[in-house]
Amino acid sequence: MSTHTKTRCVEVALGERSYDIQIGQQLLTDASLLQALIPAKQVMVVTNETIAPLYLESLVEALGGKQVATCVLPDGEQAKRLDSMLPVFDELLVNGFDRDCYLVALGGGVIGDLAGFVAATYQRGVAFVQIPTTLLAMVDSSVGGKTGVNHPRGKNMIGAFHQPRAVIIDLDLLSSLPEREFQAGMAEVIKYALLGDVAFLEWLEAHLPEVLARETAALSYIIERSCRNKAAIVQADEKEAGQRALLNLGHSFGHAIEGATGYGPWLHGEAIAAGMCMALRMSASLGWISTEERNRGIALIERTGLPTEPPATITPDTFLEFMQRDKKNRGGQQRLVLLQGLGNAVVSSDYPESALLETLQEYSNG
Amino acid sequence: MSTHTKTRCVEVALGERSYDIQIGQQLLTDASLLQALIPAKQVMVVTNETIAPLYLESLVEALGGKQVATCVLPDGEQAKRLDSMLPVFDELLVNGFDRDCYLVALGGGVIGDLAGFVAATYQRGVAFVQIPTTLLAMVDSSVGGKTGVNHPRGKNMIGAFHQPRAVIIDLDLLSSLPEREFQAGMAEVIKYALLGDVAFLEWLEAHLPEVLARETAALSYIIERSCRNKAAIVQADEKEAGQRALLNLGHSFGHAIEGATGYGPWLHGEAIAAGMCMALRMSASLGWISTEERNRGIALIERTGLPTEPPATITPDTFLEFMQRDKKNRGGQQRLVLLQGLGNAVVSSDYPESALLETLQEYSNG
Repeated sequence: MSTHTKTRCVEVALGERSYDIQIGQQLLTDASLLQALIPAKQVMVVTNETIAPLYLESLVEALGGKQVATCVLPDGEQAKRLDSMLPVFDELLVNGFDRDCYLVALGGGVIGDLAGFVAATYQRGVAFVQIPTTLLAMVDSSVGGKTGVNHPRGKNMIGAFHQPRAVIIDLDLLSSLPEREFQAGMAEVIKYALLGDVAFLEWLEAHLPEVLARETAALSYIIERSCRNKAAIVQADEKEAGQRALLNLGHSFGHAIEGATGYGPWLHGEAIAAGMCMALRMSASLGWISTEERNRGIALIERTGLPTEPPATITPDTFLEFMQRDKKNRGGQQRLVLLQGLGNAVVSSDYPESALLETLQEYSNG
Repeated sequence: MSTHTKTRCVEVALGERSYDIQIGQQLLTDASLLQALIPAKQVMVVTNETIAPLYLESLVEALGGKQVATCVLPDGEQAKRLDSMLPVFDELLVNGFDRDCYLVALGGGVIGDLAGFVAATYQRGVAFVQIPTTLLAMVDSSVGGKTGVNHPRGKNMIGAFHQPRAVIIDLDLLSSLPEREFQAGMAEVIKYALLGDVAFLEWLEAHLPEVLARETAALSYIIERSCRNKAAIVQADEKEAGQRALLNLGHSFGHAIEGATGYGPWLHGEAIAAGMCMALRMSASLGWISTEERNRGIALIERTGLPTEPPATITPDTFLEFMQRDKKNRGGQQRLVLLQGLGNAVVSSDYPESALLETLQEYSNG
């Protein structure tokens, strides 16, 4: 943290909805950067109870001169509900915020998704800026414009595509991130390597200790590389008509783990880590990757301190029930993101049903 | 109703979001038309308790061969709330509806706005078709892609722009519309004439008796002409960056009437009728239209059986409080749709504040 890294910029090129991801240090208190990226008179900062005491005051101070309102929500996935949006709408209306206002999401994936969905729907759409505070939000959820909330019957079932105007990634914020959440964020970093960037996989295998020690240069590198990978996919398929679904490697299995355990005991990244291991195993049993490739992927996940198996209490039937609600499904067939080689993910429903069942049974004690 | 009018088609040209408005008779039971316009395996029909017993069975029958689910909501503006969307999301998820499903809004403005907003946000956006059952929905709310719900602090404060894939206007459905609601719909028809189509104003002055007698040819004509007027404005400004705000003639005043009376005693169209009379009066007092023009506009509204004044119990302060929440406002100044001649509306904040206050005081007994 002693060496000050240069601020890096990744463009997400989406025509008139293009924006930049700024990656650097001390950005949260950089008043001139914030004034440039949040050119509004009225700014609503949405954050949660954990983040507010750490960073809210500094941010509000750096936004000096604007009409700033704040909304502090409970922490955790449970807050990502339709009715959690109501206090934010209330606050916007009580303060007379008009269509030219900006929302700022200061938090992890839950705050980003929820504040983004409020921005997508307040007065039929206002601008918003993401200031992610977790590794997972920095490399994944803050980029790409997916916003939304959960429904008791499925994650992210209610939402909108609404791109932010900017993403501000202040590496210094990671110093307060608990170890378990840092590891969970690493699941999404490893995801980019597995699904389409084998050179990044090699880099991670070689440099994992520096990453886990949170050395600034290593963090800056993995975040920039992850964002570039994500930006390339989002640019090619903004609304998930096709290849964007590749970003869901491990997610069909992972969402089922989160759902079957009641959203809470497993962090999203942990569930995705186990889900990626399941995808690796199934890909290997289909003969699409070698046993060595499978083991190599699982080993990196294990070295990161992430789970490599789902809870044995989840039966194949429960898995299938949750997986069938997946948004990738069309016309009832189960589409999965699988690997045809490390760094080469595909979306496919072209596999024998038995291969999926065998994979699910392998983990179950039922 | 005895003569069968030819089906007419109005295109709303919005690039890849273009769609047609079909206007004719017996369209609700035209299975081949419905199959062509709703090319989905899974169809959810959203309607209300008043409409369901009249038309739901016929529609479901005409959709034969598809997986059809239905959701029947309470009737009335009170149902247009965020939490009214929950049973629709539940029904979609219980039935395993995927991203290729279609929602069909069978009802008036409330059902269209709410079902459209569900379609905008279910799995981040699915297709929907409008089958309006009220005159107001046929000429106004079903066309143009504005969807949303009310917040206790303001109408339509939460929503999205989401264009339908088709609008199916079956003139026969108007036979069941109560007189008061028919008149309320006429407020929006007269709005198009006043704001930009003086030839239509002349036609309405000459043919109002046939319209009020609900002669099919007259209905077909006013609906087509209203839709063409609306389509032209929406095409020029889909997301209300500028001229689309002209469609809100009478609405700043009207929304305040609805809000101050607690959403219910006044129908939307009635409030808009009184609001247009207020805009006519204010425009005349500014010298932007003549006294004759003002009287001509008010006379047509009066002949239609619509109110020409707000309730005297609403004080100027209450009006201003509600008007300041209007979505057209930017940076605190009150933008109003006013007339600079019949058929020539403008969005303006370029008037002396005293002119607005005088207009409000004129009606108040406070």
